[in-house]
Amino acid sequence: MEKAPSSSVEIVEVGPRDGLQNIAEFIPTSVKQELISRLRLAGLRAIELTSLVSPRAVPQLADGRELLEHPHIQGLLADTSLRLPVLVPNIKGLDVALQRGVREVAVFVSATEGFSRVNTNCTRRQGVERAKEVVVRAQEFGISVRGYVSCIFSDPYDGPTEPSSVLSCVKELLAMGCHEISLGDTLGTGSPRDVRKLLTYLKDNGIPMSRLAGHFHDTHGNAVANVWEAYHCGLRVFDSSVNGLGGCPFAPGARGNVATEDLLYLFMKAGIDTGIDISKVVDTGAWVSGMLGDQLGCNSCSQP
Amino acid sequence: MEKAPSSSVEIVEVGPRDGLQNIAEFIPTSVKQELISRLRLAGLRAIELTSLVSPRAVPQLADGRELLEHPHIQGLLADTSLRLPVLVPNIKGLDVALQRGVREVAVFVSATEGFSRVNTNCTRRQGVERAKEVVVRAQEFGISVRGYVSCIFSDPYDGPTEPSSVLSCVKELLAMGCHEISLGDTLGTGSPRDVRKLLTYLKDNGIPMSRLAGHFHDTHGNAVANVWEAYHCGLRVFDSSVNGLGGCPFAPGARGNVATEDLLYLFMKAGIDTGIDISKVVDTGAWVSGMLGDQLGCNSCSQP
Repeated sequence: MEKAPSSSVEIVEVGPRDGLQNIAEFIPTSVKQELISRLRLAGLRAIELTSLVSPRAVPQLADGRELLEHPHIQGLLADTSLRLPVLVPNIKGLDVALQRGVREVAVFVSATEGFSRVNTNCTRRQGVERAKEVVVRAQEFGISVRGYVSCIFSDPYDGPTEPSSVLSCVKELLAMGCHEISLGDTLGTGSPRDVRKLLTYLKDNGIPMSRLAGHFHDTHGNAVANVWEAYHCGLRVFDSSVNGLGGCPFAPGARGNVATEDLLYLFMKAGIDTGIDISKVVDTGAWVSGMLGDQLGCNSCSQP
Repeated sequence: MEKAPSSSVEIVEVGPRDGLQNIAEFIPTSVKQELISRLRLAGLRAIELTSLVSPRAVPQLADGRELLEHPHIQGLLADTSLRLPVLVPNIKGLDVALQRGVREVAVFVSATEGFSRVNTNCTRRQGVERAKEVVVRAQEFGISVRGYVSCIFSDPYDGPTEPSSVLSCVKELLAMGCHEISLGDTLGTGSPRDVRKLLTYLKDNGIPMSRLAGHFHDTHGNAVANVWEAYHCGLRVFDSSVNGLGGCPFAPGARGNVATEDLLYLFMKAGIDTGIDISKVVDTGAWVSGMLGDQLGCNSCSQP
C-alpha cells in the first residue's frame, strides 16, 4: 500500500517567512536578504521568501515589498528553475507579488474555525473563498499556487481537529487549482501515529500523496519522527526552517518549525538525495543565530 | 517479521546519572535526591540513580555513595517493584552498591576501541573482561545487571562503528548474564535508517529484541524518530532523560539524551501505555531546569 521509497525529497525552506514572522524586534531587510542568499548558496531550490500580509498583523514582515525589490532577490526570481513562493492573503497581496516578478504564491486556510477567526478574522468557509479568489486570479497570470492548511491536528482555541475538516480543505484547494497542499501542524501537537492516521485517511479518500507536503513544528520534539512517518506514507515534500526558527504569532505556545538541518541529516543518512549541502545549512543556521541573538526564543537556540 | 505492537513500553530515566554527569558545577546531593524523588512521584518505575565511577573521572557524581545512603533513596531502594540501577565500573563499585542495598547495577562496554581507551582507559576486550568480573560477582549476590554498549553507530575517535562489533558486545554481555542490553548511541549520530539496519542485523544474528533497550542522544534532532523506528523493530525499553539533560564528558560534541517528555508524548499519542504522568514529568523538567539554571548547555534549555 505504501509508496515505494524514491531517491529524492524536496525541502521547502520556510525560515525567511514562517521562521522570522514571530520575532518581535524588527530584522533589517538586508539580513533577510542575506539569509535567503545563503540558503540558496547552500543548495536550497525552494525558499519561501516572505509574506505580503498586513504589516499590522505581522510587523516583522512589513518589508515584504522592499525585500522582493532587492536586486539579489530579483536575481533569484529571474531563475525559473527555483521555487520562491510568497505568502499572500488576498488579491491585493497577489498583485504586489505579481508586480515584483513572483512566480509562485501561497495561500492559506485553516482546517478549524478558532484559528481562522483569530489568524484571518474570518470563518473557515470565508477563508476558503478568499483563497479561491487569489487562486483564480493567479491562474490568469500563469502563477502557480501552493495551498497551506493550518491546524491539521489541533487548534489553539478549539482543540483537536476533525480529519474530515482537513480533507475538505485539501479537496477545495486542489479543486481551485493549487498545485501542492502543505499540511501544517501549526501547533506541533502531532505525533507519528497522528501523521499516519491522517495521511491514511486522506489517501483512502482519494487524495494523491504526490500533491501533499508536510509542515511540522517541533513543540514536543516529535517533528523529525513525523517527517519520517510521512515519508513512509508517501510524502516527498517537506517544509522546514533553518535553525528551527519559527512559531506562530496567533498560536500561543507553538514552537519552531522542524529544523532544516535535522531533516537533511535524516534524509542524508537514509541515502535520500536532497541536493542540499548540510554543512552550508549548518553554517547558515549558526550565522542567522548570531545575527538574531537574543531575539531568538529558547526553541531556536538548541538546534545544531 | 516485526514484533506486533504491545500495549506498553518501559522508560528508564537516566537523567540523574547520564543527564547530570557532564555538568561542570557540582550539584548538591539534596538536589539529586529531590530530582529522583520527583521522577518517582511522576510515575517512573525505572530510574538510574547514579554511578560509582572514579570521582576524578566524573566529579559531578562523586557523591554517589552519599546519595545512595540518603533516607529517601534508601526508602526507594526498599521498594522491590522498582528498577533503580547504579552504574558500576568494577568490583569495588559493585561492593559499594551492594552495601547500600542496590538491587540492580549497570556495566558498560564500548563497541569501539577509541572510546573504550578514553572513557575507561582499556581496550574493548579488557572492558568486556572487567564487565564480566562484575556480572559474575553480582550474580553471586542475586543482583541483576544491565549492560550498556556505547558507541553503537560511531566513535568520537574512530568514526563509524562496525555492526559486528556491536553484535559481539551484545552476545558477550548476554552470555555473561546481563538481563538487558541498552544500546547506546553515545554521540547521537544515528538516524532511523541506521537504527533499522542495526536492529535487523542483530535480529538476524539471533539477538532477541526483548533483551534490548534503546539509548539515544539528540545531537541531530533524530532521537525521537530513532525511538519510534526502534519500537517498530520490536524494542520496548527506552532510556531517556528528563528535560533532555545529558551529553558525555568523553564524547566531545555529543548532545543531551532524548527528553523523557518527548518520548512520553510520542507513546501517549500512540495509545501506548507507560504508566507515567507526562504533566508531572514536564513539571519536574521545569523544576530541574530552574535548579540547574546556567549550568545547562543550550541542548537542554529548549526541551518542553
